[in-house]
Formats: sequence, structure tokens, C-alpha cells
Amino acid sequence: MPFVKNAWYVAGWSTAFGEALTPVTITGEALVMFRASDGRVVALEDRCPHRLLPLSKGKRIGDTIQCGYHGMTFDGSGKCVRVPGQQNLPASAYVTAFPVEERHGIVWIWMGDPEGANPDDVFDLPEFSDPGWHAHHGDALHLHAHYLNVAENLMDPAHVSFVHPTTLGNAASENVPVHVSTSGATITAWRWIRDSAPIGFFKKFGGFTGNVDRWHYYHLHLPSIAVIDFGSADTTLALPEDDRDQGVRIFALHFVTPVTEDYTIDHWMHLRNRAQGDDAASAQMDAMFRIAFDEDKAILEAIHQAEQRPQRRKPIRIAIDKGPNVYRKRIRDLIEAETTEDLGAPVAPSFVQVD
Amino acid sequence: MPFVKNAWYVAGWSTAFGEALTPVTITGEALVMFRASDGRVVALEDRCPHRLLPLSKGKRIGDTIQCGYHGMTFDGSGKCVRVPGQQNLPASAYVTAFPVEERHGIVWIWMGDPEGANPDDVFDLPEFSDPGWHAHHGDALHLHAHYLNVAENLMDPAHVSFVHPTTLGNAASENVPVHVSTSGATITAWRWIRDSAPIGFFKKFGGFTGNVDRWHYYHLHLPSIAVIDFGSADTTLALPEDDRDQGVRIFALHFVTPVTEDYTIDHWMHLRNRAQGDDAASAQMDAMFRIAFDEDKAILEAIHQAEQRPQRRKPIRIAIDKGPNVYRKRIRDLIEAETTEDLGAPVAPSFVQVD
Amino acid sequence: MPFVKNAWYVAGWSTAFGEALTPVTITGEALVMFRASDGRVVALEDRCPHRLLPLSKGKRIGDTIQCGYHGMTFDGSGKCVRVPGQQNLPASAYVTAFPVEERHGIVWIWMGDPEGANPDDVFDLPEFSDPGWHAHHGDALHLHAHYLNVAENLMDPAHVSFVHPTTLGNAASENVPVHVSTSGATITAWRWIRDSAPIGFFKKFGGFTGNVDRWHYYHLHLPSIAVIDFGSADTTLALPEDDRDQGVRIFALHFVTPVTEDYTIDHWMHLRNRAQGDDAASAQMDAMFRIAFDEDKAILEAIHQAEQRPQRRKPIRIAIDKGPNVYRKRIRDLIEAETTEDLGAPVAPSFVQVD
Repeated sequence: MPFVKNAWYVAGWSTAFGEALTPVTITGEALVMFRASDGRVVALEDRCPHRLLPLSKGKRIGDTIQCGYHGMTFDGSGKCVRVPGQQNLPASAYVTAFPVEERHGIVWIWMGDPEGANPDDVFDLPEFSDPGWHAHHGDALHLHAHYLNVAENLMDPAHVSFVHPTTLGNAASENVPVHVSTSGATITAWRWIRDSAPIGFFKKFGGFTGNVDRWHYYHLHLPSIAVIDFGSADTTLALPEDDRDQGVRIFALHFVTPVTEDYTIDHWMHLRNRAQGDDAASAQMDAMFRIAFDEDKAILEAIHQAEQRPQRRKPIRIAIDKGPNVYRKRIRDLIEAETTEDLGAPVAPSFVQVD
Repeated sequence: MPFVKNAWYVAGWSTAFGEALTPVTITGEALVMFRASDGRVVALEDRCPHRLLPLSKGKRIGDTIQCGYHGMTFDGSGKCVRVPGQQNLPASAYVTAFPVEERHGIVWIWMGDPEGANPDDVFDLPEFSDPGWHAHHGDALHLHAHYLNVAENLMDPAHVSFVHPTTLGNAASENVPVHVSTSGATITAWRWIRDSAPIGFFKKFGGFTGNVDRWHYYHLHLPSIAVIDFGSADTTLALPEDDRDQGVRIFALHFVTPVTEDYTIDHWMHLRNRAQGDDAASAQMDAMFRIAFDEDKAILEAIHQAEQRPQRRKPIRIAIDKGPNVYRKRIRDLIEAETTEDLGAPVAPSFVQVD
Repeated sequence: MPFVKNAWYVAGWSTAFGEALTPVTITGEALVMFRASDGRVVALEDRCPHRLLPLSKGKRIGDTIQCGYHGMTFDGSGKCVRVPGQQNLPASAYVTAFPVEERHGIVWIWMGDPEGANPDDVFDLPEFSDPGWHAHHGDALHLHAHYLNVAENLMDPAHVSFVHPTTLGNAASENVPVHVSTSGATITAWRWIRDSAPIGFFKKFGGFTGNVDRWHYYHLHLPSIAVIDFGSADTTLALPEDDRDQGVRIFALHFVTPVTEDYTIDHWMHLRNRAQGDDAASAQMDAMFRIAFDEDKAILEAIHQAEQRPQRRKPIRIAIDKGPNVYRKRIRDLIEAETTEDLGAPVAPSFVQVD
């Protein structure tokens, strides 16, 4: 299945890009990236059009890259500005440049048709700039797995009880049904587990001792950004569904970037409405997330291996797959729209009746 | 070439299967095996029908396996007994179960049509229960080789002089012709080398100093079980062919299990009519066999590599290949019978004559 | 693209071949080589025609090889001289033998139609036997790269300024145009860089301090032997182009042997008109060459990786590619001639007019 191309994907945290020529692969495309002297991050096709040497093997000269083989040189727009041994600079001696945007310490790249690259579409949240919230960059989880399985896992509340029984879930939620709704390019799956023991995460972070009401809202912004709004509040508060800020509330963000069909990077971070500016709390949460995400990684990589084998029977889908099913359908629709040209409205009728 | 499926293959020694979920691959099929509380060994398809996670990554709960991703649970017959999040248990939510038999400390599995799985067909020998004989489990030889080449090697007396010149063969047999006969599903190749120096094996184990009569009977029970009846007796005894128990007689058993097209496991053991209960003798023989089987492994793995390369000319067959030729033909016939449906006897004549 | 087969390729330095059975792969063909008792090097197909075991896994017996599996034995012409277990030696029980020539400490092999193997065509230079010149075997560079890219690099003066800026080139040559001419099976690219600073190599080896005239003549003898005639002379000498022996002159020889589509060995050596018999000078030059050739290897291996990926656009060729372009065209012509049968001259006209 092809990748969804018309999307802003995370290329990395801002700290990953500086002076050096940095090779990055996204949706199967090899890119070379660097931060230009004006501070903007540049992303070019990592392939000299002459003899195919990756430009990342070359040399940065000012804001241009000189190929390491014969010295062809390209500027940040991909235009060739020098061909040693000749004066003319042919128009086809270019490399593709990719639109890049940077926000809140995150570098985004548009892999599709550049005409569709609207900076307003870059993912954002009001809480990034809300002083009542604390944002903390976590890390990047590398998985030998398909990105659709990684993203699907992030809108799948049902796996939590079995994959993360000591961290993000517990047995209390095993049979609690999941609701699913969609709104524009966002699919949301959610459930509340009322009046049950706190999960490991909130025992440690929230300090709860008695029973809590716990919620999980899994928002999947197509194609592969997940915002998991989860939290807990003392059961005695009888928290209404739309007043979650009264509890301990976390947004776990996952920016899932397809590298190849077999490799995915999940840049994860969180925002929280408690312990603002408390680095120890951030480190503590990172540690808990790492344990949980390694549990996901083990499952997703085993599934990736299994999917490579010939299948004797088609897989089944069950009741808990409502969210994932909607997600797969929407992804298929996006790819269909990107890879076909719809000529449904004919210019003229096929037959003209003569009377 | 497909595998022969309708056969009892060795999955492992009995000691290999206990409480733990143990992944095993046979004829290309991933299985999960464990010993149930009633002592019987269970073998299931190692693939949850939902999201394909190997069940061996899950958790054993009593005599059931709970999938490690979403908790779907299967009993020892492969039937789904729980789907978290829903009440109904759909009939297609099953995993395939494979017939298993256990005898003399060996676990056998049937990979084909379950209706054809007849426990009476599991390999057996009267000597297993004969007090005059001593049975000793050896080890499992893992080879990066095709199982048909491994099995063919076990009914090929001609290689012994060249591959095992210091252990199982010597130059005396280089030109001694080989006889081949077949009986039911067994092919036998054999030869006697009369009045010659003892081979390394019987110098060590039999303690022979003068010349001996030596025999090798290679019985190949289709598709891939080898019983090598070999031994030596003092030449002065002039041993008749059918009175081999008077000599030092060994049955070397090889249970050849196809794992994939590129990987084979040969579980080997022996029975002997001398030194019953003598563990030192068993260890001594194991050590000698290990040397010899490593010699086979080196040859068979080099051949496997060579077979992957494009072939400019077709291989040749020579006089010593009588046994292997019969073996290959029988295997092709078995696969033909398993993979085609013979409608040779038409239900009605094609044309009906009207008179 | 198929390999050029009708050519003498270097199998190795003479020192590489002795008593031992030595496996060598050239143009994708697995060979076994050894030095026979008469001193001649033998090269045979490394594959027993019986069960495909590489003969190099067997045993040398006199000037024959005995297969390690069943003892089939072949002489240095590839003829089968023994089949254990039978008297007749069938004609088809042979292995292919390849013509071999040895000159100046180098072993050459002919991989094509044996009828075309003319010993007079083996590469030679008068300087090999000229007392004014010193010949020194260097080493063998192994590259995970396609041999045509390796050979093309050796007739490509333009890369020197960018890949070897501290050893074989410098910025002075970046824009100096390259001349290309062809003569028979040889393509020559050359340029003179007059009155500029000496490159690193000649600073160290020639001891130049002031400006020099420097030349590079890249002779490519099809399909893949490169002779790079390069040197320097004090600019004040105003050296004529055809009087290069007055300067410090080096012939860097590269014998490029295609191993597989993904692997190439470049046996390199040099001849020089200075410091005859000076081992320290040889070692010093080897050290300089090693640095430079590792720079080539890094580039060529990165290109090989890049070429395996799907290409969205066709590569471009630029002015400096004159030599490489001629080279590629000549290679395509050679392969066309080897792989097709030209029936251009019809035996009889297609239509015979009757009048």
C-alpha cells in the first residue's frame, strides 16, 4: 500500500537539525536536511541527479551543498548553482526541495504535491502556548513495523489492559466498551472507567490512593498523529465528561512518521496540567512511558514479522476494532484520492441522440 | 517443491515441552506448543486470527492461551473461548490445532489433513521395548539445508568413505556396490564390507583389533525417517546376513524434520545391543556421532548454498545414486498425490451414443 | 546488464595461487583454482556436476581434485577421471576449465568462449621489462560496487579535485577541461594542469616546492583495465606533452575484476620512472594510494546503495562525462556483440521476382 504523501510529517525535534548535512528517510524518500544561515531548515532530495551520490555525503558550502563526487552544487531550493567543467546550468540539473515548517521545537515536512502544502495545516494545539500547561519533548521510538499498525495501536484503547497491565492499563477496563466518533480529519475513540483502582501511571504521578474515575480519549488526526487525552480524578468528584481539567490530565502526543514499509519513527511528547516546570516529574513520566512504549514495540514488531509470512486465512475483526476499522477506511480513501484521477463528471455524453 | 504434509514428524524430545509456550516451525508452519495439565502436548497455529500476533507471545492461563495484544483466548483444541469487549464468540475466531502423539520420549506431530492422522502410523521399533537393547537420545542437528538433501544423505552409503573417512567409513568401502530394495513406505540401501580393517567408530566402541565384516543397512521410512542398522563382527565368525545380532549392532535413528525450505532439524538417537545402561558408552558414541554429523552438515550446507545459484547445466546422476533416485521418485509421487485431485474415473462417458 | 565475458581478467597476484584449492568468483562464476605440479595455474568450475558440492571443499590428489561428497575426481582440464562405484566415465561428467595465463606476477583468466582466448591479448606494457622503470604490486581493493562504476571512475579526471583534494587532486584542476580520444579498444581522457601548486602526492613523492606542470592520462583498455599515466615536472621546464619521461612519471595500473553484480575487486599496482629498487618509496606510495582509494571506495559504495533504490527521474550527464559516456557506449556494444547473433547478411533474398 502506498504512503499518504499529502501530509505534514514530523522530521525530527528542532534540536536534530543544525549545520551538519543530516540524512533522513520519510515515506521511503531519502532526504538531506540542514539548518540554513537564516535559521530555516532545508530539506532536499538526497541524490545528486548526476551519478546518484547522496548529497549528504558531500560538503556544505554556505547555504549550498556541493556533491562529494564531481562538485555539482545545489542551493536550498534545489536549484543547481554550479557544474564544474561547464558554464551552462541546465534546468534539469536540480534536486527536489520539500516544504518545511517549524513550530514549538518540532520540524515538519510535506512529502506530497508542494502546491498542497498549507502551513496552516501543521498540527497545533492551544495548550502548547497555555501557561497552565507544561509541554515536554520525550523521545523518538524506532520500530521495525508498518506505520499504519503503529498509528492504529494509538487509537486502540482495548490493547491497554493486555499490553500495559502494570503501566497504562489494568484489568478493570478489559470489558468496558469503547465509543468512536469522527470529526473532519480526526477520529476519536474513548471510554471512561469509573470508580476503579488507579493504574500504575497515576499511582506514581497522581498520587491517588483510593478509587478514581479514569478517561482515555484517543484522537487520531489523519494520517498518523495521535493525541491521547487521558487522566484520572478522585471518584468522589463525579467528574463530568467535559470538565476533565479538574483532574490530573495528560496529553500524550505521538507523531508517527513512516520511514519505509518496514520502519517507523514515533516522536512522542506530552503536555500536562500539573507540575509545570517540574523537570523531575517530566523525567518520571518519560521513564513510565518508555516502559509502556517498549511493550508496544515488542508487540508491533512481532506482528510485522508475522505479516510478512503467507496467510492461509484472512484476519478477523472484532467489536473492539471500531476505531481501527474507521481509521483503515479513511486511510484507504486518502490513498485512493492521492493515487487516482477522478474523471467522474464526463465532459460530454457518450452518445448524442439524433432526432 | 511443496513439503510432504501427511506425515508424523518429530516436533522434539519430550523434555522440550512443558509449561512454557514454545514456538516451533515445521513444514513452514509456525506453531505454539505446550504441555497441558493432563500431560498431553498441545500444538496450535502460532497466529492470533485477529491481528496476527504469535500466540507464543501471549500468556498461558490454565490450559488456554491468551493473546498478548487484545486478550483473545483459545483452548487446546484451538477454539476461541473469550473475546474481550464482546459476548459472542464467532466460529471463525479459531486457530488450527495439530494432532500430536508422544512415544518413547519423542513428540510427534501431524502437519497434514487431520482426518488422515492415524496414531498407529507413528514410527516405532520393537527394540525400543526390548531389554536386550539400549535406547539413548542423542541431540538435534540444525542444518541450513533442504530436508530432502538431509534425508537423501542418510540413505547414501557411498558418501561415507569420503565424508567420514576417520569415523564412519574408510577406503575399504569406496568401490563396494550398494543394493537397493523397497518395501511399502520403506526404501533400503545396504552393503557388506567383508574382511577389512574396522572403521574408527568400531575401533573405539567395539574394541576390534583384527579384520571385521561390516554392514550398513540404510532404511528410509518415507518421507524422512532414517534407521541405519550398522555393525561389525569378527571376520572369523563369517556372520550370515540375517544374524546381525551376534555382532556389535547399532541402530542410528534420524528423525528429519523440515522447518522451512532452508532449514532442517535432524533429531538423532541410537539403539544398541551392547553396553546396556552404560552411560559412558552412550556419551562416547554421542561424541563420535557429533564429529561425523558435523562433517555431513558442512557438506549439506555448502550444497544448499550452491543450489541457490543459477545452474548452467543439469546435475548428473551416477551408479551410486540408486537409493537416492528411488527416494526422490517416491517423494515426488507423495507430493503429487497430496497436491492434486485425481478424477481419472469419469462419472459418465463423455458421449452417449443414440441409436 | 550481463558481464563482458570475452576478456582476460585478473584472478589475482601470482602469490595467491599455490598448492591449496582456492575458491574465486569472477563474472558471477564460482571457480576453484590451484597451481599444478608443472607450475601452471588451473581454473575449474567450482561445482561437482553430481550433487553440486563446490570442488574447493574437496581434496587435491596430485593434479586432480576429488569431490568431498562422493569422490568423483577431475583433472586440470576438467575431465572426470574417477567415479567411485562404477567403471565407466561418462562424457558429461566434466567441469568447465577456464584458460589461464600468467605474466609479470599476475594471473589472468578468460571467462568467455575458450576459442577466443588469445594469449597475445593479455595486457602487457613495455615498461614492465624496462630497466629504467620500477614495477611494484600494490594490493587488492574490494568494493561493494558495480565494476562498471569502478572502471568509469578510473577514467574520470573530474572527480579527482573533489574526492581526493588532499592526495591526488586539488582545486587547481576543478575547471580544467578534459580531452577524450579513442584508439582500438582503448579510450583515453587527459588533461594538463600547467603552472600550479603540486598535489599532495607529488609534494611527498616528488619533493616539489614550487609550481609544477601536472598531467593525467587515463587510458581505459576495454573492458576494465585502467592505466593512469600521471606525473609532474617543474613548470620552468615547460615540458612538451610527448616528453613526459623527463618529469616524475607514474603509471597507476588498476585491473578491475567483476566478481558479482554487487562486488568488484580492483588489483592495483604502479610503475614509476624514479626511485628504482627503493622499497621505502614503494611503501610510501602504497600508503598514499590507500588513502585515495578508500576515498573512492566510500563514494562508489554509496552510489551502489543509491542505485538499488527506485529512481523517480533519469540521471543526467554533464560535460565532464565525455570519457565515461564513450566508455559506457563501448561496453554496451561489446555486450550486444557477445549476447546476440547478427544474421544481417541474409543467405537469400526474401522475395525472388519471377519475370
